[in-house]
Amino acid sequence: MKPSIPKGTRDFGPVETARRNYIFNTIRDVYALHGFRQIETPALENLSTLLGKYGEEGDKLLFKVLNSGDFLSKVTDAELAERDIPRLAARICEKGLRYDLTVPFARYVVQHREELQMPFKRYQIQPVWRADRPQKGRYREFYQCDADVVGSDSLLNEVELVQIMDDVFRRFGIRVSIKLNNRKILTGIAEVMGAADKIIAITVAIDKLDKIGLDAVNEELRTAGICDDAIAKLQPVIGLAGTNEEKLRTMRAVLKDSEVGLKGLDEVEFVLNALEALPRPADGSSRNAVELDLTLARGLNYYTGCIFEVKALDVEIGSITGGGRYDNLTGIFGLPGLSGVGISFGADRIYDVLTQLDLFPAEAAQSVRVLFLNFGAQEVARCLVLAQMVRAAGVPAEVYPDTVKMKKQMAYANALGVPFVAIVGEDELRRDIVALKDMRSGEQREVAAGGLLAAIS
Amino acid sequence: MKPSIPKGTRDFGPVETARRNYIFNTIRDVYALHGFRQIETPALENLSTLLGKYGEEGDKLLFKVLNSGDFLSKVTDAELAERDIPRLAARICEKGLRYDLTVPFARYVVQHREELQMPFKRYQIQPVWRADRPQKGRYREFYQCDADVVGSDSLLNEVELVQIMDDVFRRFGIRVSIKLNNRKILTGIAEVMGAADKIIAITVAIDKLDKIGLDAVNEELRTAGICDDAIAKLQPVIGLAGTNEEKLRTMRAVLKDSEVGLKGLDEVEFVLNALEALPRPADGSSRNAVELDLTLARGLNYYTGCIFEVKALDVEIGSITGGGRYDNLTGIFGLPGLSGVGISFGADRIYDVLTQLDLFPAEAAQSVRVLFLNFGAQEVARCLVLAQMVRAAGVPAEVYPDTVKMKKQMAYANALGVPFVAIVGEDELRRDIVALKDMRSGEQREVAAGGLLAAIS
Repeated sequence: MKPSIPKGTRDFGPVETARRNYIFNTIRDVYALHGFRQIETPALENLSTLLGKYGEEGDKLLFKVLNSGDFLSKVTDAELAERDIPRLAARICEKGLRYDLTVPFARYVVQHREELQMPFKRYQIQPVWRADRPQKGRYREFYQCDADVVGSDSLLNEVELVQIMDDVFRRFGIRVSIKLNNRKILTGIAEVMGAADKIIAITVAIDKLDKIGLDAVNEELRTAGICDDAIAKLQPVIGLAGTNEEKLRTMRAVLKDSEVGLKGLDEVEFVLNALEALPRPADGSSRNAVELDLTLARGLNYYTGCIFEVKALDVEIGSITGGGRYDNLTGIFGLPGLSGVGISFGADRIYDVLTQLDLFPAEAAQSVRVLFLNFGAQEVARCLVLAQMVRAAGVPAEVYPDTVKMKKQMAYANALGVPFVAIVGEDELRRDIVALKDMRSGEQREVAAGGLLAAIS
Repeated sequence: MKPSIPKGTRDFGPVETARRNYIFNTIRDVYALHGFRQIETPALENLSTLLGKYGEEGDKLLFKVLNSGDFLSKVTDAELAERDIPRLAARICEKGLRYDLTVPFARYVVQHREELQMPFKRYQIQPVWRADRPQKGRYREFYQCDADVVGSDSLLNEVELVQIMDDVFRRFGIRVSIKLNNRKILTGIAEVMGAADKIIAITVAIDKLDKIGLDAVNEELRTAGICDDAIAKLQPVIGLAGTNEEKLRTMRAVLKDSEVGLKGLDEVEFVLNALEALPRPADGSSRNAVELDLTLARGLNYYTGCIFEVKALDVEIGSITGGGRYDNLTGIFGLPGLSGVGISFGADRIYDVLTQLDLFPAEAAQSVRVLFLNFGAQEVARCLVLAQMVRAAGVPAEVYPDTVKMKKQMAYANALGVPFVAIVGEDELRRDIVALKDMRSGEQREVAAGGLLAAIS
């Protein structure tokens, strides 16, 4: 019976792991460049921390960990017979696997508030677990790559997060559109529609514009009890086009009577202007476009200010990064009034985009620079010394451990994609040279032992 | 109510995370330098993969994950009423958290055998979970840092692993003794004692020499049913002293009639000689001593050839790295005959040693090089441009996001340990300069905007 892993989980082999590390390290480097500091929280959290934070559906998707020892010791026979599943689960499980990085972060901030200097800029790159139905591109164990600033209301944080998204995708070589919206603008729209209480239905519906089209959105608004008059008022907003300046001008007219709506427009304008004033990238590349997109609502009712979303331009795929500003992150843990703003890179989707566009750099593979073949005890003793010399210069090198047929050793070199193979046989040993084979060109030449490092660098 | 995390788990703040990354990255760099390739396996494994692999005690220490949905659907009322805890656990949990990296690796090798090129040199740095009673230095969630070679019987693998241990600890600046033994020598000793069937009791007892002393070891051997004659024969072995050469010479005499014992001595001698022939470290530092230690048995009955253990010389602490050769890693998953050899660095103990000896490098903290203070909209606009210029050179920089009192901003700079603070007020803005404060010396000087990067580098 072939062993297997739970559905929705994955093994990552050497090549995949190297490529994933390339993604994580790129994101990490940019976060650190902007002064975000990494933290790590445990995979296991108390269920009391997790339950009730992700809605009823989310509670069902939490992986719960069975208490150790006699997990039934405090459960009565009557309770068992009742088979009240959620209740019983709560009695036999105290811990669960984290579902995202946001709730553990909120818990962390409250638990460690005395030690933290505000504003606190943290990033976190760790796996999360969800008992979702696995399907293409959706896993039960996957990484999130979050950065958040808490304890600062300044819009400069939004500016910085857009800079980060732009920089990360330029490093990847992925052309993207960075979409920007503001929950306050959406609130303003609902206000002028005379449907302020329907804000959630409105944002949920217009968020679907890309997927289901205008007619279906309008139908959904009607079903939500929004009158035709109000829906008519919404049309110019949904169909809004032009440059950011043009959109802002139109919206200032539409929202002229909504204080909150105008505030949202001011915020967006501030962020766009601040980005505009930044110097162009030094490498001459152009920055990714930042586009005001009023249809962007990101389902979540969570955001209270700016909302971000990144779409790849050259691949058909959903959002590859998202985020926004939220109020009261930590209120649920007893520390109210702390606002934050954050983003999250979707590592799995970025992996797919980089694969489809063939953008992984060659270095994002794991292979030594040179493999020394093994022709016997005496020859290999020399190879050990040479390999150590190469490694001392920081260049990865490997000695084939077994004295087996050359064909087998070369098959190993090929499978690993090693750029150079070094051969020290009886003759080379006597002459203190190395026969060096360039595996890409197929050429083989003799180099003095002392010149090996230069020859492979 | 202050939120908390499950006992035995930990939050790692920015400084701890940076220091842990320094440890992981150092180990990773050395593994990669030797051609080991990183893989990652899921935290969640099928319980069928994990159960029965760690002994009865280990099975109890597995964290089991409750099945999603109606976990009782296939459990009858009779089964519930019976309260057979292990049986019920198996009925309501299919998955568990990995307990170590070795069993998932064995499972990985068997599952992916068609894709793998042997010998397969892999490393893996991931957390594991154990429902152990938490105590000082023992956690329920902790990282392991393993490297193994499978599919090669060559002793050059042992040589390479010792090189790796030596290199890693030299990079850390931790002076260590690398202890080497061989299970075959222990078997040989049991043979010449006429107590071959007591090999386990003998190794378990002599492994305790350091902890309980010679008398207690002899008492334990007696309790295990080993006769005084045999115990007498063991004394010169336990008390063995001198250089490796002297020990080998003595042992060749003691084990002259044991084929397996002599084989073990040959293996140890080969590894010691190969290491001896390697060039000295280029930086002039001396290599860590490798010492034949016949009392080293590492509890586990698991090892079949060389056994390694590393002890720090300047700190009282247990083993900080260990490993050895084992046969038949993958037999339990249906792929017999695959031998392997591996090591595992104890990251938590290494962290403690580095802390006690104050050896963490200053770079193993997370702080930007320069913090720009915020004196208002106009001034900060200039700072955003300057910060971006600094970052373009790869130097981390941060702009304080809020226009608040300077005292508060300086407190932030101090708390983060930022080396430089850049001040752009009204006057500096007009003169296109920056007032740059060196936070270590306390000195402040004016630098032209164009000279900022050089001034902080």
